[in-house]
Amino acid sequence: MIQPIGDRVLVQPTEKEEQTAGGIVLPGTVKEKPQEGRVVAVGAGIFRDGHRVQPEVKVGNQVLFAKFSGTEVKVDGQDMLILHESDLLAILN
Amino acid sequence: MIQPIGDRVLVQPTEKEEQTAGGIVLPGTVKEKPQEGRVVAVGAGIFRDGHRVQPEVKVGNQVLFAKFSGTEVKVDGQDMLILHESDLLAILN
Amino acid sequence: MIQPIGDRVLVQPTEKEEQTAGGIVLPGTVKEKPQEGRVVAVGAGIFRDGHRVQPEVKVGNQVLFAKFSGTEVKVDGQDMLILHESDLLAILN
Amino acid sequence: MIQPIGDRVLVQPTEKEEQTAGGIVLPGTVKEKPQEGRVVAVGAGIFRDGHRVQPEVKVGNQVLFAKFSGTEVKVDGQDMLILHESDLLAILN
Amino acid sequence: MIQPIGDRVLVQPTEKEEQTAGGIVLPGTVKEKPQEGRVVAVGAGIFRDGHRVQPEVKVGNQVLFAKFSGTEVKVDGQDMLILHESDLLAILN
Amino acid sequence: MIQPIGDRVLVQPTEKEEQTAGGIVLPGTVKEKPQEGRVVAVGAGIFRDGHRVQPEVKVGNQVLFAKFSGTEVKVDGQDMLILHESDLLAILN
Amino acid sequence: MIQPIGDRVLVQPTEKEEQTAGGIVLPGTVKEKPQEGRVVAVGAGIFRDGHRVQPEVKVGNQVLFAKFSGTEVKVDGQDMLILHESDLLAILN
Repeated sequence: MIQPIGDRVLVQPTEKEEQTAGGIVLPGTVKEKPQEGRVVAVGAGIFRDGHRVQPEVKVGNQVLFAKFSGTEVKVDGQDMLILHESDLLAILN
Repeated sequence: MIQPIGDRVLVQPTEKEEQTAGGIVLPGTVKEKPQEGRVVAVGAGIFRDGHRVQPEVKVGNQVLFAKFSGTEVKVDGQDMLILHESDLLAILN
Repeated sequence: MIQPIGDRVLVQPTEKEEQTAGGIVLPGTVKEKPQEGRVVAVGAGIFRDGHRVQPEVKVGNQVLFAKFSGTEVKVDGQDMLILHESDLLAILN
Repeated sequence: MIQPIGDRVLVQPTEKEEQTAGGIVLPGTVKEKPQEGRVVAVGAGIFRDGHRVQPEVKVGNQVLFAKFSGTEVKVDGQDMLILHESDLLAILN
Repeated sequence: MIQPIGDRVLVQPTEKEEQTAGGIVLPGTVKEKPQEGRVVAVGAGIFRDGHRVQPEVKVGNQVLFAKFSGTEVKVDGQDMLILHESDLLAILN
Repeated sequence: MIQPIGDRVLVQPTEKEEQTAGGIVLPGTVKEKPQEGRVVAVGAGIFRDGHRVQPEVKVGNQVLFAKFSGTEVKVDGQDMLILHESDLLAILN
Repeated sequence: MIQPIGDRVLVQPTEKEEQTAGGIVLPGTVKEKPQEGRVVAVGAGIFRDGHRVQPEVKVGNQVLFAKFSGTEVKVDGQDMLILHESDLLAILN
């Protein structure tokens, strides 16, 4: 398994880019078009003002994140991304 | 539904750009011309000096924000923007 | 009405650029020539070191601010500017 | 009168650039040649680490400041400069 | 032996780049393709907000790190890298 | 007399650049060749984390400082430099 | 003698670049090839979060540091370097 370091999270990008579970459609303009995926693992957070601040997201959350961000890895044959929490835009309930 | 992360807010841009509810007319010079919209969801805020500082705006506020800022998403067929709080200029009472 | 967000202020620029109420004449060199205007609304300030630090200026203050700064808006037909407090140079008593 | 905002100070530049009251001669190399002037008004200072830190200089101090810094204004016909405290190099006793 | 300074860690890169112990396959796009290696020594951490914050990783951890980061050294004939903790992406359990 | 402001110090550069009192010879490569001089006056220091942090150097110290740093002034016919403490490299005992 | 200021250290570079005391061989690729040397003097450290944080290294430590960093000085005929602590990579036991 992969344990992201610091404020990073491991996300499995969702294939279907048009219609998403939460009724979110990602408009066609490639540049701003955020991507969607499921959170697979979450880092312990980074140290700020004397506390280790944990990321807001939890394992299992469906999230929107900025296109072209993160580093690609393959885990057990699955394409995944290691992202900073700051790359994440929103949680899709 | 979408839950913005950190200091982000979800805003639905208002179509009519000339006359607005609060009597605000956005002058024609495209560069500085701020946009107007309604706050649909607000993030939990970011950690600063040991506190999670919540954004000033509330759901339902009509706000002015810098043109060309934010990331486009479509929610249930509606065009929306995910903005940082720092992109927001003012609340229109 | 407009409620500026964070450390922003709403200012109505004063037309007469040569002689001003406080005997301030703004020299001709366009680049440095600061502008003058009246404070119409003041933001709640931004969070720093655990406190929300309010802007120094009050509604009604006549202020000097850096030329070409801020974002233009029209309020009830009046040209106004949304400025950061850091754009403001001085209060004219 | 002008009340500078934040860490700014209002300075009236001294005309005679060669020999100054404190025996300071500003060498000819235009770039580094600092200017001299008298402090006319001082801002309340800026907020840092929970305190409003007041500028070190007082009204009446003769000061040296970096050439080409600050914003020009005319007060009652007098050429003046609004400078940040960080533009000031030294106080001339 | 080498004792990294501050937030640095000493890592011995792992040769086999395709299949890794934790089933992690590093995709072919050279730019993002992170590298893998074993942590050999860990710095004492750097001072932040009054504490010396220790790196999250321990000696013996298998880690993923950004390609082309760090400084090369040879220790007892072995190629090694001195990296900042911020170059490390994840721990492979 | 000149009282430097903030973290600045007033230094009188030493003429003889080859052999110095402390047996320090400044190698010929002009770029890195630091200069030497005597501290004539020291600022009160700047505010950091709630304290005014005084410069380490004292009046009378012989110091090494980075070439081409600081601002030139003449005091009672003497060439002097106003430097930031961060320009100072070492004290020569 | 030289007393480095702030977070600086005085290092005497070690001549023999191939094999070093700790069995460290510095690979040939000039860019990343760190240098080795002995710590001759250590600064008092810099002020951070209300404390003066001392450098980790001690006089007599053999250290690795980034190539081309620091300022050259000659002390009693010996070539030495004044480095920031952040230029130091590791201590060689």
